[in-house]
Amino acid sequence: MLPPLRAIPTFSDADYRAALARWETRTKPSGSLGRLESLAAQLAGIQACPLPDAREKRVLIFAADHGVAWAHPEISAYPATVTGQMLQNFKSGGAAVCVLAGQTGATLAVADVGVGERNATRDFSREVAMSDEDLMHAWAAGTDAAASLLPADVLALGEMGIGNTASASALLCLLTGASADETVGRGTGVDDTGLRAKRDLVAEAIALHAPNVTDTWGALRAVGGKEIVALCAAMIGAAHERCAVVVDGFIVTVAALAAVRLAPGLKPYLIFAHRGAEHAHERALSALDAIPLLELGLRLGEGSGAVLALPLIEASARLLGEMAGFADAGVDTGRESRVH
Amino acid sequence: MLPPLRAIPTFSDADYRAALARWETRTKPSGSLGRLESLAAQLAGIQACPLPDAREKRVLIFAADHGVAWAHPEISAYPATVTGQMLQNFKSGGAAVCVLAGQTGATLAVADVGVGERNATRDFSREVAMSDEDLMHAWAAGTDAAASLLPADVLALGEMGIGNTASASALLCLLTGASADETVGRGTGVDDTGLRAKRDLVAEAIALHAPNVTDTWGALRAVGGKEIVALCAAMIGAAHERCAVVVDGFIVTVAALAAVRLAPGLKPYLIFAHRGAEHAHERALSALDAIPLLELGLRLGEGSGAVLALPLIEASARLLGEMAGFADAGVDTGRESRVH
Repeated sequence: MLPPLRAIPTFSDADYRAALARWETRTKPSGSLGRLESLAAQLAGIQACPLPDAREKRVLIFAADHGVAWAHPEISAYPATVTGQMLQNFKSGGAAVCVLAGQTGATLAVADVGVGERNATRDFSREVAMSDEDLMHAWAAGTDAAASLLPADVLALGEMGIGNTASASALLCLLTGASADETVGRGTGVDDTGLRAKRDLVAEAIALHAPNVTDTWGALRAVGGKEIVALCAAMIGAAHERCAVVVDGFIVTVAALAAVRLAPGLKPYLIFAHRGAEHAHERALSALDAIPLLELGLRLGEGSGAVLALPLIEASARLLGEMAGFADAGVDTGRESRVH
Repeated sequence: MLPPLRAIPTFSDADYRAALARWETRTKPSGSLGRLESLAAQLAGIQACPLPDAREKRVLIFAADHGVAWAHPEISAYPATVTGQMLQNFKSGGAAVCVLAGQTGATLAVADVGVGERNATRDFSREVAMSDEDLMHAWAAGTDAAASLLPADVLALGEMGIGNTASASALLCLLTGASADETVGRGTGVDDTGLRAKRDLVAEAIALHAPNVTDTWGALRAVGGKEIVALCAAMIGAAHERCAVVVDGFIVTVAALAAVRLAPGLKPYLIFAHRGAEHAHERALSALDAIPLLELGLRLGEGSGAVLALPLIEASARLLGEMAGFADAGVDTGRESRVH
């Protein structure tokens, strides 16, 4: 029994190329807007429209707890109770992502998909983290939460869950064959002792689960967090409605890697917001051939980096749509054109 | 006869430190907002206020023509007439920076400090670009234009002037001792033939002027553009009123280098927006020990990169001011604190 995968429409190469062609007629040297030019073209391909829009912005955060963090508190710099406390902080507007969403005019929603010790996953260092039913439930919650925010132009995704860098590291190991040494970092800032404990625990988990895991679903069930499963579902749900997905930091990027394994057509719908400070983030980005927009040394999660990238994404679409053309503005084009 | 330098108030180390201390009490792991944390602290030091603001944003573009481009059109991908045409495009709202300023809620102003063949500088490859009077005039125009936009929290600076990457390259040579090979690039996208001509012309100019240039004023007079002189004046004028200055691409960065040589106290007032595609930009940034916020392959000028960085700058101040504290939000602090 596996969750249903929503169909993802084909990325429109024709609109992607139409957007690139339009850039050449805007009042600026060819290529001079750098990454913003390909970004707007990507939006055009996603929306199947040569003049894309990015003004309708949504932010969705999935929160869940991890049995591994309740059982082994030494692997995180924060106690597992902080997941629930931060859920309240999101609701009362005091968290970083709330401030950022407010500034950029994005609607923010938070979905509890397993917060609290009772609702947490099981300790993945000792057993499979989720039952089939847990997986189905988290997937449905992710699909529904995304659907409730659509239609929109752009969906920025974030997460909250004490212990979820450990879960993402283990998942990255199972998806790519990397070792725990290569994927485990300090997360929110665990000390040297905690870092060693976290590495050992992830290594144990990989030794336990790798022999039994045969596909991406199995990897998600074995070590995934419920918020990670919900993120995968939300990404595919957004792409189903031609909504661009903005990928935040390490955990969301690992979720994106899993989701692309499940649905390869998702890939062109993803915009990678930033390269974070967690060292394995780069490994996850590389596995997706992703070059993110920002590099600011962030390691907060909760979608903060994704929301910081929204103004750049919106700018790319506005520039393509609103800048004057050479002819309309009475501006001479460059030498190459003039010699004709 | 030299332009008067407005006094720059001392950067407040106490407020810088107070801002850093406040970050430690906000609901996030220590240091997890990366560059945004030092950025907000920099604003605190600039404004001499522990809770800085960055909502009042201004964009100021200086436009001027260069005799070197009128005399040697082969050194630019665009004819010199484009400076005046783009001035109109700024006024009618069709240029990239207009779209970006509108999106971010920043007031945009454009100052003509020498547009048109009659008002252009002289050909710096043959003679000194500016008279003492020209220099004084451009400086006063820069000071006045900045003053007319203040008070404000943040001033983003840009430029327009066909030929001004050649001027900035020559100025960078005179200020740092670099060769024309090291400082000349393709600007708005000149072809190989044009690039060789541009390098040769800058090399000739350096051979002509270097023996006579004894200080920064002399370098500005010899090869500077009027918009570059106005940029220097505007930076110092903004710092005089404790307004942060956002530095755009190659030309504005070289202007910043000249302005810091004239007034070393300006340095902490500068925020570097982006690393552009012009290869010598990195050289100019290094001379200022500057690490910019963005790297998007931009090479448009007109302040576009500086305006793209404004949402990040505003975010840093909003986060510091608006995020909840651990105690108020009822969120447990990290392990280090809990063991007490």
